[in-house]
Amino acid sequence: MQTLRVALGSRAYPVHVGSGLLDRPELFAPHLAGRRAAIVTNPVVAPLYLDRVAASLRACGAEPVIVVVPDGEDHKDWQTLNLIYDALLSARCGRDTLLVALGGGVVGDVAGFAAATYQRGVPFIQVPTTLLAQVDSSVGGKTAVNHPRGKNMIGAFHQPLAVVADMATLATLPPRELRAGLAEVIKHGLIQDAAFFEWLEANMASLLAGDRQALAHAVVRSVEIKAAIVARDETETGDRALLNLGHTFGHAIEAGLGFGTWLHGEAVGAGMVMAADLSARIGHLSIPDVGRVAGLVDRAGLPSVAPALGVDRYLELMSLDKKAKAGRMRFILLERIGAAYIDAATPDGPLRETLFACSAPVPAPA
Amino acid sequence: MQTLRVALGSRAYPVHVGSGLLDRPELFAPHLAGRRAAIVTNPVVAPLYLDRVAASLRACGAEPVIVVVPDGEDHKDWQTLNLIYDALLSARCGRDTLLVALGGGVVGDVAGFAAATYQRGVPFIQVPTTLLAQVDSSVGGKTAVNHPRGKNMIGAFHQPLAVVADMATLATLPPRELRAGLAEVIKHGLIQDAAFFEWLEANMASLLAGDRQALAHAVVRSVEIKAAIVARDETETGDRALLNLGHTFGHAIEAGLGFGTWLHGEAVGAGMVMAADLSARIGHLSIPDVGRVAGLVDRAGLPSVAPALGVDRYLELMSLDKKAKAGRMRFILLERIGAAYIDAATPDGPLRETLFACSAPVPAPA
Repeated sequence: MQTLRVALGSRAYPVHVGSGLLDRPELFAPHLAGRRAAIVTNPVVAPLYLDRVAASLRACGAEPVIVVVPDGEDHKDWQTLNLIYDALLSARCGRDTLLVALGGGVVGDVAGFAAATYQRGVPFIQVPTTLLAQVDSSVGGKTAVNHPRGKNMIGAFHQPLAVVADMATLATLPPRELRAGLAEVIKHGLIQDAAFFEWLEANMASLLAGDRQALAHAVVRSVEIKAAIVARDETETGDRALLNLGHTFGHAIEAGLGFGTWLHGEAVGAGMVMAADLSARIGHLSIPDVGRVAGLVDRAGLPSVAPALGVDRYLELMSLDKKAKAGRMRFILLERIGAAYIDAATPDGPLRETLFACSAPVPAPA
Repeated sequence: MQTLRVALGSRAYPVHVGSGLLDRPELFAPHLAGRRAAIVTNPVVAPLYLDRVAASLRACGAEPVIVVVPDGEDHKDWQTLNLIYDALLSARCGRDTLLVALGGGVVGDVAGFAAATYQRGVPFIQVPTTLLAQVDSSVGGKTAVNHPRGKNMIGAFHQPLAVVADMATLATLPPRELRAGLAEVIKHGLIQDAAFFEWLEANMASLLAGDRQALAHAVVRSVEIKAAIVARDETETGDRALLNLGHTFGHAIEAGLGFGTWLHGEAVGAGMVMAADLSARIGHLSIPDVGRVAGLVDRAGLPSVAPALGVDRYLELMSLDKKAKAGRMRFILLERIGAAYIDAATPDGPLRETLFACSAPVPAPA
């Protein structure tokens, strides 16, 4: 097991990465002293891992309340949030209750937001069981639900007390979900580590084959990069926005197709290619490097071409992006592979060209 | 104008108290630089004060989005919250939008929670127009909505950038609302300032008559007491719970009668008498001092006798209180007038006696 740290002063916390961690009560115990506990999970993860996490909590003396919420991005909404509130209130859980989010990004985001807001905030632990959640969403304290008008529009910054990333859970992850997680891994290389990007180019086949060691390296390096950025800028007043490379486009794809049609990571894959294309059009990234980005996204089994929603529809969907300032969209673009920057004045012409050139009527990935 | 300060480090903020403050753009300007603005208010306050606040924001260069939400504690819920989200999203408000909560405690709590959660948090200013909001709810950063199972069950700590308490708005406050605000004023004396309690005993008639100077003193002293406690314990891990004197009983009254039947301050009035009675039963407060508490509540025109919901129903309603720890209710009790403490092991017998002795089938206050 490796333990990384998100350095946030009094809100600092460990990220444990390793195999078989679900069965180690000592990872939960420091956060449970005298507390009640509740596990939030979904019907896919529950039969696989719920008993083991519940047993670890019981070994710490806490009989957990179990809340099973529907799976999928299209359920990342008020209704699901209310299921959690209702279950906690029914079980008379107080402010001393520890929430445990067991599942992928959707469970983590919704359970995290429930933790941020139940009785004005209760502590929680992230137990991510997908690659996407392990390399990205479980770390950094962003929690949210979607609004019909936009992804993650309602949410809060609420840091977990710990992240317990059990790599062994990736063995049961459907291949499509594994690929979706790789999008965020690629993103971490792109924004700040060219050597890691090259390592991904060399090791993509191993990662797709589920090679334990390769995946562990991808998770650890991703968490290192993300934790360092979050420690510098917890609430995204600056640099943290770099982690949104490909996400302004990606969120538009998700919302435009309807949440859940493409997985978040798939939309981010195509979105990163759009960001690379736009970077080249305004004179930064080289054309061959755009090809490397598209090539790696493609080799990860992710869509490198966005769906043809129409340029105007894309602009409309993107205009609500949370990174906008004073009504102007801000894009994360690439100076080169391994170096991203925030572009506050992207000209309209190249943006429209990118939206047109990088989209096509494509079938949904399967 | 007097300006008090809530000393919370990087989240410190001013509380301006005075007359005619709605028309002073310079109180809003420091928080508006380059921002958009939205005003959340209700149909009672809007015709009285909306134009003036909007004019002040326009004088700072911000054309405010206006969101009018239904009035009353029974509307402090998800539906009202969603009205705010929808309006902000329709107007394409970004994370750089300043929310202005113009109204009483309900508007402040809901708009504050919307500010805490819209796009993971936007800044806001409290412009309280009721005595209750000026002396209590606008200061300290508690925001929330109610859940059918309990008051303020869903919420967040989110400090405003400033509080602008225009005493002149109290001139239009219905007498019943003025009395409700006095409950929280009395509470501040009871928990930590015996001299202020005595001043209230001597000046209750002036306060009820709307005497501007008396009210200003009551607001300033209340904010001083509350601000000092909040500065010591922002998220209520300790002392801040003292501010909940009478509230465990009060919330049970509100929920038991249905939110909005009694005003919050009315329920707190009767709740403080219950807390005083219980304090005496377990051997702290003297019997004559219980009489002084009930007497002052009564002279403030507030109910000093709680509705007879039944002892068991009271216990059930109170068991969900947010102050509970490890399933045990915790009460704020009085050592003497001017000194409160947190009681973590209140015996069942005296509690049942208080619930029985201090309640009666009374008509709703009018």
